[in-house]
Amino acid sequence: MSNESARVDLGIDTQRVADTLCRFLREEIEGAGFDRAVLGISGGLDSSVVAFLAARALRPENVLAVTMPYRTSSEATRRDGRSVVEQLGVQTIDVPITRQIDAYFEQFPDASRMRLANKCARERMTVLYDQSAAFEGLVLGTSNKTEILLGYGTQYGDMASAINPIGDLYKTQLYPLAEHLGVSEQIRVKTPSADLWAGQTDEDELGFTYAEVDQLLALMVDRRQERAALIRAGFAADLIDRVSELICRNQFKRQMPVVAELFTPSPGP
Amino acid sequence: MSNESARVDLGIDTQRVADTLCRFLREEIEGAGFDRAVLGISGGLDSSVVAFLAARALRPENVLAVTMPYRTSSEATRRDGRSVVEQLGVQTIDVPITRQIDAYFEQFPDASRMRLANKCARERMTVLYDQSAAFEGLVLGTSNKTEILLGYGTQYGDMASAINPIGDLYKTQLYPLAEHLGVSEQIRVKTPSADLWAGQTDEDELGFTYAEVDQLLALMVDRRQERAALIRAGFAADLIDRVSELICRNQFKRQMPVVAELFTPSPGP
Repeated sequence: MSNESARVDLGIDTQRVADTLCRFLREEIEGAGFDRAVLGISGGLDSSVVAFLAARALRPENVLAVTMPYRTSSEATRRDGRSVVEQLGVQTIDVPITRQIDAYFEQFPDASRMRLANKCARERMTVLYDQSAAFEGLVLGTSNKTEILLGYGTQYGDMASAINPIGDLYKTQLYPLAEHLGVSEQIRVKTPSADLWAGQTDEDELGFTYAEVDQLLALMVDRRQERAALIRAGFAADLIDRVSELICRNQFKRQMPVVAELFTPSPGP
Repeated sequence: MSNESARVDLGIDTQRVADTLCRFLREEIEGAGFDRAVLGISGGLDSSVVAFLAARALRPENVLAVTMPYRTSSEATRRDGRSVVEQLGVQTIDVPITRQIDAYFEQFPDASRMRLANKCARERMTVLYDQSAAFEGLVLGTSNKTEILLGYGTQYGDMASAINPIGDLYKTQLYPLAEHLGVSEQIRVKTPSADLWAGQTDEDELGFTYAEVDQLLALMVDRRQERAALIRAGFAADLIDRVSELICRNQFKRQMPVVAELFTPSPGP
């Protein structure tokens, strides 16, 4: 972005946002007849923020943090996940996914690393839903607004949940919220990564930074600015086109299955 | 149902419905940039109908039928699944889920059979999505309108798909369609079962028959009749209340995750 005047103020009132999200969690969970929640803890920023919100909203004993390492998961990631659990005093269980995943891929030894990554994301969803049945809690989503808009996640995997407290916050807006909630500096300063493979980082894979794309998304989606206006605001044409394409191409991840409609319902009485 | 005058005509023009659904499949799949489809074949009526529609719409070589037996799956079920594949000449692959499921539940030996059934349904979804990546096809849903309305299925399991050609047809409407398409009598006459455990049947588990509940749903949902009118039409009060409760309680299975809303989008230009 060459033109600094393009900057949108993405600042948030962290106290107000934290209070609103804790109220949202309590109301939605109680409204569904529950008082507990389950979430996957990766050691990353997003799941840490959700864990802190849940512990505050529901009390730590009503929150189950599930760690689901695969054999290639980094030791640093596991350590950061454990530190969140210890800091909050939430309930926790470790459910490694290595044996299930490896048993499946024995039949498909040449599968790409993207297939492996998506299978892992979906296996973790199935573990969270099974644990939620045992714990009698709702599954919390940990996808942020940037990921949801770009479709940067696995459909029916990490994008699946019962309720998601952070889906209306861009990735860059989670940093001040995390600091306000007490998420450790260790977690807040590290490079965002889905830990899909060794050395993977979100921004390398996406080809742009969260700081840049959040600015663009705020103008393109929230303020509905057209391409010409975005170029005048200093965004590169190829970035605009790539982000537009991601939003459109991944729309299917933000909707229910498309059902063939055969009959028009008759009008009501 | 004591009052035969309550009967709604759920008859369908099988030729027209089959043509419409084949066109739906072609248009949706081509619109998404694909020309192939993947589905799970259980040997039951619903997945057989979808397989027949897909083979007709896309040609058999563009359809991948995936059988995903668990060790408790009945031999009759497996045989019926194979017969559909052979009759249609579609592509097929057998991906047993036993090792993945058993590896997971070794850590939870006391899990209920409902947890096992849901984990199996979700594992099958993850297999279909992985196979769809390899085959470069869309995942077809096989949930009928009765199951969708009652929420009789596993969220993010058998209820998950890219497109679903039979979601606007009640279970009882699938029988004439199946006959029209050429589904074998063997599959059309057998008792509906998700084969979740030995001897399980849908109607025993639900506590009512498809014939009865489809009539009730057509009046309650499509024609929006109120409770008093349904009782006058001859439906038992406890059936009405149980079905209403299922529809309401399982609404979450028909929607995307609930996202906390924090900001009102600013108006467009």
